[in-house]
Amino acid sequence: MVASDVRDVATPAVVVDLDVLERNITDMARSAAERGLALRPHAKTHKIPQIARRQLAAGAVGLTVATLGEAEVFAASGVPDIFIAYPLWVDQRAAARLLALTERTQVTLGVDSAEGALQLARVLGGSASRVAVRVELDSGHHRSGVPSDRALGVALAASEVGLAVTGLFTFPGHSYQPGAASSAAADEQQTLCAAAAALRKGGFADLELSGGSTPSASLASGSTLTELRPGVYVFGDAQQWELGHCAPENIALTVESTVVSRSSGTDGRADRLVLDAGSKVLGSDRAAWATGHGRLVDHPDARIIALSEHHATVEWAAARMPPLGTRLRVVPNHVCPTVNLVDEVQVVRDGVIEDRWRVAARGRNN
Amino acid sequence: MVASDVRDVATPAVVVDLDVLERNITDMARSAAERGLALRPHAKTHKIPQIARRQLAAGAVGLTVATLGEAEVFAASGVPDIFIAYPLWVDQRAAARLLALTERTQVTLGVDSAEGALQLARVLGGSASRVAVRVELDSGHHRSGVPSDRALGVALAASEVGLAVTGLFTFPGHSYQPGAASSAAADEQQTLCAAAAALRKGGFADLELSGGSTPSASLASGSTLTELRPGVYVFGDAQQWELGHCAPENIALTVESTVVSRSSGTDGRADRLVLDAGSKVLGSDRAAWATGHGRLVDHPDARIIALSEHHATVEWAAARMPPLGTRLRVVPNHVCPTVNLVDEVQVVRDGVIEDRWRVAARGRNN
Repeated sequence: MVASDVRDVATPAVVVDLDVLERNITDMARSAAERGLALRPHAKTHKIPQIARRQLAAGAVGLTVATLGEAEVFAASGVPDIFIAYPLWVDQRAAARLLALTERTQVTLGVDSAEGALQLARVLGGSASRVAVRVELDSGHHRSGVPSDRALGVALAASEVGLAVTGLFTFPGHSYQPGAASSAAADEQQTLCAAAAALRKGGFADLELSGGSTPSASLASGSTLTELRPGVYVFGDAQQWELGHCAPENIALTVESTVVSRSSGTDGRADRLVLDAGSKVLGSDRAAWATGHGRLVDHPDARIIALSEHHATVEWAAARMPPLGTRLRVVPNHVCPTVNLVDEVQVVRDGVIEDRWRVAARGRNN
Repeated sequence: MVASDVRDVATPAVVVDLDVLERNITDMARSAAERGLALRPHAKTHKIPQIARRQLAAGAVGLTVATLGEAEVFAASGVPDIFIAYPLWVDQRAAARLLALTERTQVTLGVDSAEGALQLARVLGGSASRVAVRVELDSGHHRSGVPSDRALGVALAASEVGLAVTGLFTFPGHSYQPGAASSAAADEQQTLCAAAAALRKGGFADLELSGGSTPSASLASGSTLTELRPGVYVFGDAQQWELGHCAPENIALTVESTVVSRSSGTDGRADRLVLDAGSKVLGSDRAAWATGHGRLVDHPDARIIALSEHHATVEWAAARMPPLGTRLRVVPNHVCPTVNLVDEVQVVRDGVIEDRWRVAARGRNN
């Protein structure tokens, strides 16, 4: 017996609202096109071929992924152009997979060191030219990537061993802070510009300059960048909501959950209830500035004050707590880990389940 | 081509050391038996039938799980006695699954409200007696469960509608704090004692009194409790290490990872390297007192200062950073979410892969 009304599905369940999803995809595609920017959405957010197809149909030039395994899933589903935006350390086994991948799709790889480029060329042997590379820049997030003044060195090393250097990229992850989007977007722009100038002086031409987290995506200028790689925008999440980058009505993914326990406030404690959506479906990401471990989309004043694997403890501010068995919709803080926790999502239009999509690239960490 | 040396497996990969695992299982079984306590390990930690079988062979009386889906997986693998330690809100669909489960295994359910018991009896109809219940107590963790003075009310309500009340249980989750294990164990003991006295006065007999998180498990007394339900002890993790409840050599599960990026300290920053094990394999759990986002088992001075989905940024205290491509073993902060992120684990003895175990109950959140 399979539920067709979302209120009948066993909880916790990840539910995607198709109308909102499609609107988010269209809006970002239009916004990028208006600025003359190519859109290459990061598919680590959704890991679902049915969503990738909608992104490509709306004009995306290809996809971004983080791992070889994700690339394999999307190549198998027919995506013709994939950028693995990660400085993979490619050993002999990974090289064989990479070459198999190039038979099905155009593959570009991130690189942030001369050693990484050398290793890649060594394991690819005579086939090095089948894989393009982009040099990763650190624009202030201080994770992987090199400062702009070291980009030329990496590009020259890659070029010398036969790899085609086709661009530069950066992830301005420091945009995930209240009020930080515009300065992060400026850092991104400046870093890409400076490195691009150095590479052009060094003889490199036709460079793709790729940036764009979801918070900074709307601020990227087509006069500097050529490409955007936002991921989260397809669904939205509580982080984007609290940072002001999406409104609750633009959130396409929620976790349907049930009230399983409740207790009236005593000893100075507020009323609290427990939902059956814990960290094993919501994920545990929580930024220092977040107001809780996720939000209730229909009850903006409630706060998830504690999260265990199968319990979300909610402080209930309103006068009357809902009874046991009530369904509530939770918006996860960060949607990418949420999708990666489930094997399928319920696809809903107007509360009716239209489809179930398999999270085909779930768990493809390598 | 399947790797047989753990150094050849694609990273990140979850690796279980069989010798350490088996020792942990034996040690806890012996410790419980010496105190006259039954052991009912929480299988949400491992979700793997091969580990459950080893626990039962070492003397466990049955398993604890958190969800109906986990119970279904372990019942299918032949576990004869399962306690779902969770106040499930059972609707008509869940009732059908619950009854099917009772055909294969002895099932006990948590309950923490009269309404929950009533609902359970209503949907089970004439079959209510096929499911036993234990009343959940709040011993200080303030999640689900009732205070000890309300346990009798719940037990009477359950009994009145035809459910067999066979015990009391609590989870002293507030033991997961530095120095908190002994006071949490005392709370647990006191709460179970007080509620048991009330139930006995109310006519209930032969009650199982079940407690025991991994931090408090060694402190539980057989003169009060009858049963322990620790989970994490099979693997250990960085939390238990930092809380002093396991030594690094007793950690059975690590995440094999590769150095993919590195940068020398400039602008006052320490040397740092990036590993390919991010939150999508380690999980994001981080207690306020944790020293980082996980630990490197062979480099106790290194600290994971930042974690994204596919990057662990490590501050390297020692003189010389390892080169790109180096394999390092990460111990996740909290092992339960880690296992729930992967479809299989590599099973290793002396560095050689002996087997691969499917995480059969992965993602079974409902």
